Amino acid sequence: MENFDFKNATEIIFGRDTEKFVGSKVKEYSKSKRILFCYGGGSIKKSGLYDRVVKSLKENEIEFIELSGIKPNPRLEPVKEGIKICRENNIKFILSVGGGSAADTAKAIGVGVPYDGDVWDFYSGKAEVKESLPVGVVITLPATGTEASNSSVIMNEDGWYKKGLNTVLIRPAFSIMNPELTFTIPVYQTACGAADIMAHIMERYFTNVKHVDLTDRLCEAALRTVINNAPIVLKEPKNYDARAEIMWTGTIAHNDSLSTGRIGDWASHKIEHELSGETDIAHGAGLAIVFPAWMKYVYKHDINRFVQFAVRVWDVDLSYNSPEDIALEGIRRLTAFFKSMGLPTSLKEGNIPEDKIEEMADKCTDNDTNTVGQFVKIGKGDIVKILNLAK
Amino acid sequence: MENFDFKNATEIIFGRDTEKFVGSKVKEYSKSKRILFCYGGGSIKKSGLYDRVVKSLKENEIEFIELSGIKPNPRLEPVKEGIKICRENNIKFILSVGGGSAADTAKAIGVGVPYDGDVWDFYSGKAEVKESLPVGVVITLPATGTEASNSSVIMNEDGWYKKGLNTVLIRPAFSIMNPELTFTIPVYQTACGAADIMAHIMERYFTNVKHVDLTDRLCEAALRTVINNAPIVLKEPKNYDARAEIMWTGTIAHNDSLSTGRIGDWASHKIEHELSGETDIAHGAGLAIVFPAWMKYVYKHDINRFVQFAVRVWDVDLSYNSPEDIALEGIRRLTAFFKSMGLPTSLKEGNIPEDKIEEMADKCTDNDTNTVGQFVKIGKGDIVKILNLAK
Repeated sequence: MENFDFKNATEIIFGRDTEKFVGSKVKEYSKSKRILFCYGGGSIKKSGLYDRVVKSLKENEIEFIELSGIKPNPRLEPVKEGIKICRENNIKFILSVGGGSAADTAKAIGVGVPYDGDVWDFYSGKAEVKESLPVGVVITLPATGTEASNSSVIMNEDGWYKKGLNTVLIRPAFSIMNPELTFTIPVYQTACGAADIMAHIMERYFTNVKHVDLTDRLCEAALRTVINNAPIVLKEPKNYDARAEIMWTGTIAHNDSLSTGRIGDWASHKIEHELSGETDIAHGAGLAIVFPAWMKYVYKHDINRFVQFAVRVWDVDLSYNSPEDIALEGIRRLTAFFKSMGLPTSLKEGNIPEDKIEEMADKCTDNDTNTVGQFVKIGKGDIVKILNLAK
Repeated sequence: MENFDFKNATEIIFGRDTEKFVGSKVKEYSKSKRILFCYGGGSIKKSGLYDRVVKSLKENEIEFIELSGIKPNPRLEPVKEGIKICRENNIKFILSVGGGSAADTAKAIGVGVPYDGDVWDFYSGKAEVKESLPVGVVITLPATGTEASNSSVIMNEDGWYKKGLNTVLIRPAFSIMNPELTFTIPVYQTACGAADIMAHIMERYFTNVKHVDLTDRLCEAALRTVINNAPIVLKEPKNYDARAEIMWTGTIAHNDSLSTGRIGDWASHKIEHELSGETDIAHGAGLAIVFPAWMKYVYKHDINRFVQFAVRVWDVDLSYNSPEDIALEGIRRLTAFFKSMGLPTSLKEGNIPEDKIEEMADKCTDNDTNTVGQFVKIGKGDIVKILNLAK
């Protein structure tokens, strides 16, 4: 186990009707009476969530300025707009209501407001975050784990670069999670969310750090929970219990408790960012394409770990001919599981143009000058091979 | 799953040599330059830990007043002394170095200082905690989980009442955890710690709340980690990797992440408090006596849950004659595991006088006016029967 420093102070308010607490929680954590209220499209208005949030804010005498229309694969433009609004109105708190895109936008605004330079500096790695406005989240999509994560992913329209920022300073102050709010997520998006959650766990699972028994087992527990409950929510979208399991697992998957003492990989996420940067494919669908291909490319690096994954997560029987066969059967079952949820598992199925492979590999490695991944360090040539395995 | 509110902001600094950060962490979290420094006996002086802590405090210009001699099953007297010292010296931060007793004492002092009445009011349930001084912990004994828990257990010498206080306000600001500091824990105390950790998980595991798939699996993962690693540390006290697994599992077991959305039982803990209140038996040893007896008494309340425990935690084969047989085999394996670590599993082996059963059952239920436990509510008569099963 590696030495580690772990702190996650996000308050989670989880369960039925919990959105009614949003006003009192904003009051508790905000240093200004006026806040920025970020959300996406019309879905929170159609569902009535918008009205309930506004009611709770008003009951607590919170004034708000709206920043709406945040899109999936959230863009830099609204981030800059939000920063401007906050500065002009002396706003010290940002509330996001919706999916990961609204929350990631709120986080980006939070670090941008107190910073003199261009907020993109944090995403491009040019500058380091020193402070952030507090952010509160009402999350309606279990997927990105952003509700308790140290992550924000933003797309720069100038060149369509999608980059992630990681710093504990952007963990939300609170996150409100009501599984009922996820009942209306369409089947495909539900499946994408499940794949994203599994990917967050698997990025942590595949590590070179030895003697990580507890966190291995916690990761396996979380993966099995998704594997058990995702098929239920796909069939029964209003099954509260299964929705709750998926939703809470989505948070645990990415709140960094599962990666304490480990060094995760994250190559698949970085490669996927190029897929969704290129084509606007849903992040979870992109991961369902990339992860199995990445596994097929790297499994020989640590057969034992892939055998453990196959046996403990997928119940692969030990009676196969060889450790390699067991490992490959685990990867096959993961792929079959993604397929069973209706997700693409190849570039073709995901409508990713094969002639963009080279360009995506270039972008992902800053024109072949960097590598991605920690479990196995992967360069441009490797990415080309992985994406060819994913054809 | 039940609705829940979860927040655990304790910063964990985990790994080799991490005690060197104590001074800078105190500086970060303390509002006074002078602090109270609580510890137990001479073991931290013998090991050199005391000197390393003092060095780090001095390097960070932290002044300290010492409160030493804190004993296992920590008493109320030093708590009151600590409160007096803090008030007289305008101290705003308490550091504990050592095992759970020093930390629980520090937590009690923390809530006592800003309170006008008798600090015991919080433990007896007469008053509710409104605020606490921040507490920092360097933990040397993986067992109580106090390093990130909302708990403090104190013994009132006046009547030998041992009571627990639970409030999120007493979670430590930070906890420093170096598994190397646990190398010198004697075998018996190591085993007691492992039993305590398992008990914290099992108290959470046995719940009437349905659909708690993720947290069930996380609990099972944590239990299996102890079951795998405790025998290693008993044989190889200086095995860093296994010590690290036990130590981190001890924290996860009691930081409340495993009980999100669940209602735990806690009858066994309350019964055990009477055993250690009566005889000063180590808490973990008392739990090894009480828990199997409690299980034998209550398993019929939810056979399925005990079957799940037997199969998933203890690998009991499903081919037994009946669910009841599977459940009982799980309890038998737990008992055998405690025995294999050299722990007592009966009152006799623990030198608990049988003629005190009645008195302990009385104390535990406030003279037969209260029940304990949530999974099954247990009165005085039940406790007498459980302790008789433990003879």
